[in-house]
Amino acid sequence: MSFEFWKGHGTENDFVLLPDPDGDVHGDLDADLVRRLCDRRAGVGADGVLRVIRTSALHDGHDRTLGGSAEWFMDHRNADGSLTQMCGNGIRVFARYLRYAGLVDAAGSIRIGTRAGEKTVTFDDDTITVDMGSPAVVGETKISVGAGSWTALNVDMGNPHAVAFVESLDDAGELDEPPSFDRGDYPEGVNVEFVERVDDRHLAMRVFERGAGETRSCGTGASAVTVAFALADGVSRPCTYRVDVPGGRLRVSWREDGRVELAGPAVLVAAGTWLG
Amino acid sequence: MSFEFWKGHGTENDFVLLPDPDGDVHGDLDADLVRRLCDRRAGVGADGVLRVIRTSALHDGHDRTLGGSAEWFMDHRNADGSLTQMCGNGIRVFARYLRYAGLVDAAGSIRIGTRAGEKTVTFDDDTITVDMGSPAVVGETKISVGAGSWTALNVDMGNPHAVAFVESLDDAGELDEPPSFDRGDYPEGVNVEFVERVDDRHLAMRVFERGAGETRSCGTGASAVTVAFALADGVSRPCTYRVDVPGGRLRVSWREDGRVELAGPAVLVAAGTWLG
Repeated sequence: MSFEFWKGHGTENDFVLLPDPDGDVHGDLDADLVRRLCDRRAGVGADGVLRVIRTSALHDGHDRTLGGSAEWFMDHRNADGSLTQMCGNGIRVFARYLRYAGLVDAAGSIRIGTRAGEKTVTFDDDTITVDMGSPAVVGETKISVGAGSWTALNVDMGNPHAVAFVESLDDAGELDEPPSFDRGDYPEGVNVEFVERVDDRHLAMRVFERGAGETRSCGTGASAVTVAFALADGVSRPCTYRVDVPGGRLRVSWREDGRVELAGPAVLVAAGTWLG
Repeated sequence: MSFEFWKGHGTENDFVLLPDPDGDVHGDLDADLVRRLCDRRAGVGADGVLRVIRTSALHDGHDRTLGGSAEWFMDHRNADGSLTQMCGNGIRVFARYLRYAGLVDAAGSIRIGTRAGEKTVTFDDDTITVDMGSPAVVGETKISVGAGSWTALNVDMGNPHAVAFVESLDDAGELDEPPSFDRGDYPEGVNVEFVERVDDRHLAMRVFERGAGETRSCGTGASAVTVAFALADGVSRPCTYRVDVPGGRLRVSWREDGRVELAGPAVLVAAGTWLG
């Protein structure tokens, strides 16, 4: 079985892209193939797969409705083969591919369908920006790692986050094990961000993603972190924070209308043929 | 900078292959490019790079001499960009590429140049076998991990190994930290194998490679392990052991003439163009 793939990353959150405009290359996209592609030793290796498919070509009525009027739909799967709703770094890499392949206009904004609905993505030289929607600030919670314990802010960005304010990113230790959290606040688990202030409107974070462990970057995490600090700092909207993640640098703006914009690099590193 | 690459693995020891027959694509092959290619998030991702170059095209007089009369030379680099001598899984993947690309005859044996001299590789359906040369059995040594301590055999396969006999592979624990060893026996460090007997002539091993940590497979390690067990078992040569590694299954024969043969699968999973 031989087919085309691409590989790219946004702040080192990396993806295998599968061009399948009319849905006739990969059918329902088998979870086992996703796992094989994402295997970092026996496959290409990635955090997930982004199938590039026209919304009109989706088999599933549910997905097609969610894709809305967007021509292109980001069919995102985790490395374990499971379906996902949305990925802030993934959609920026997806947009980079659409533009590189000449599937969308080279400038301005486009809309991309996802399982979390239509998203707006804007190109500006090397930077790709995505509208992440509005956060829901749920309230305070507690996070602990080993003997350390922190007050954290419970922020929902479509997925649940706990933003823990730390003196130093080292305070969270090795992060080999998941942080402890309040099951009452997060019945389905949580993504935990540990955030250190670097300077005014400049943060650095580490993130432990549920089901994945510590990762190099997390787009919804950087968004949640910015919301938490803007509230703590008492700054008025619109406001913009620089957020350093282990894999690079993101810029997050909280707009006057309450929506969050995530901006940063998205790079294609290879195009190839799968022979596996 | 755009160029062709392939990706393949032998028992999940994985490599980026760079076709460069006449040495005019990659010149001296910059260590920084090797590191970027091998980066598992921002690059293609691999344990190392195998440049496919004609022995006659090597710039370096030293390498050219070592390549001997072999038409093709395996220019192997570690993921950190450093030069290496020889790699038992790498050379089997290298041979798979030569055959797939039609650069060598489809059957029988070929010779491949390496920095450790000419090596003989044999094709037999899906299995590729490499003559790893003769071991030097140095003597007993001691290895410890945390509170555990084991007698080990010091075997040199061109690189230094300590083969520790364990009741269970779990005895070695997490292997997050390098095992402790006798600096007198191994002034330049050591690759440590922990080996459990599964059955008669059937072993299972884990390996901690110096500079790399625990890996999915190690060809010289499987060879050293077989030598150590054949000696402990008091079996006469020729003898063959099956050696299970985390990434798959190898077969190692210790020939009557004292040379060791490593056999196993070698797979190409992708061919592509680097855009990075």
